[in-house]
Amino acid sequence: MGDLGQALDLARTVPDFPEPGILFWDLTPVLADAPAMAAVVDGFRRVSGAGPELVAAIEARGFLFGAAYAATHGLGVVPVRKAGKLPVVGHRVEYRLEYGTATLEVPGAVIQPGQRVLVIDDVLATGGTAAAACALVEHAGGIVAAVCVVLEIAALNGRARLRGRPVHALRTL
Amino acid sequence: MGDLGQALDLARTVPDFPEPGILFWDLTPVLADAPAMAAVVDGFRRVSGAGPELVAAIEARGFLFGAAYAATHGLGVVPVRKAGKLPVVGHRVEYRLEYGTATLEVPGAVIQPGQRVLVIDDVLATGGTAAAACALVEHAGGIVAAVCVVLEIAALNGRARLRGRPVHALRTL
Repeated sequence: MGDLGQALDLARTVPDFPEPGILFWDLTPVLADAPAMAAVVDGFRRVSGAGPELVAAIEARGFLFGAAYAATHGLGVVPVRKAGKLPVVGHRVEYRLEYGTATLEVPGAVIQPGQRVLVIDDVLATGGTAAAACALVEHAGGIVAAVCVVLEIAALNGRARLRGRPVHALRTL
Repeated sequence: MGDLGQALDLARTVPDFPEPGILFWDLTPVLADAPAMAAVVDGFRRVSGAGPELVAAIEARGFLFGAAYAATHGLGVVPVRKAGKLPVVGHRVEYRLEYGTATLEVPGAVIQPGQRVLVIDDVLATGGTAAAACALVEHAGGIVAAVCVVLEIAALNGRARLRGRPVHALRTL
């Protein structure tokens, strides 16, 4: 736990990014520090429960944490991508943002029906993106084993949009 | 070698993506297959030479391969990102595309002077992006230990833009 605490203390905040009024949590110092990344990956393992068989990593920062977890634990990784990036789209979900909508996609023919899939992202904020990723996994026939994030901003109540799926944050702010 | 060959055979081609005339190499079936990813990561280790100390992973597909390599080999990972994504920009490079220009950035204060950095991406095509990533590592004081990619499209001669840096592709097309 000490190691994980130290790892997360490397995160730095940047006010007014990407727009005024937003406090951005920059995890690049965590990513660049090998012991910190090992602690994060181990932290995910301890909370993720029994037997995920595949990782779904959310673009783009979730790719880094999701692929690190997957490689360490001998799992494959499926990228959950923004619209238009995947050449072979299996499923697509449009979801609401504060202003407007966004679209996420998963590739076709890579999630197997019944597979237990761990959804990984860097930060859980309003939960819209994570909920869309879960919906995509489920549309493809997978089972969301859990949603794991490094940081959770509790005031935004993202868990409310993820009901029915176990949600684990390594640190709640 | 057999394992790596089998792993790379999972790649699939998609004609006319993202635009007419482009043959896109889709590596999502490789990413989703745990033994294939293990073979790719081991393939990078065999060619990457002595002692990289950090991985620079190029947005976005390079994040997946770069973070997988870094986590497996106990290294940290630095994301090389498109313009406007990083809240703390250390260095920025603008480079030419076939039409127009693009910009890549690395975060501030995460690459240490003298660090040996392995640059990882999925595909080497014209080499413009990889060359920009190398320039960023060098501007930050790092040393490019090597550039590793899963696939290289030899006809586009990306190596010509990477002179002076060792370049390794797991498969050349």
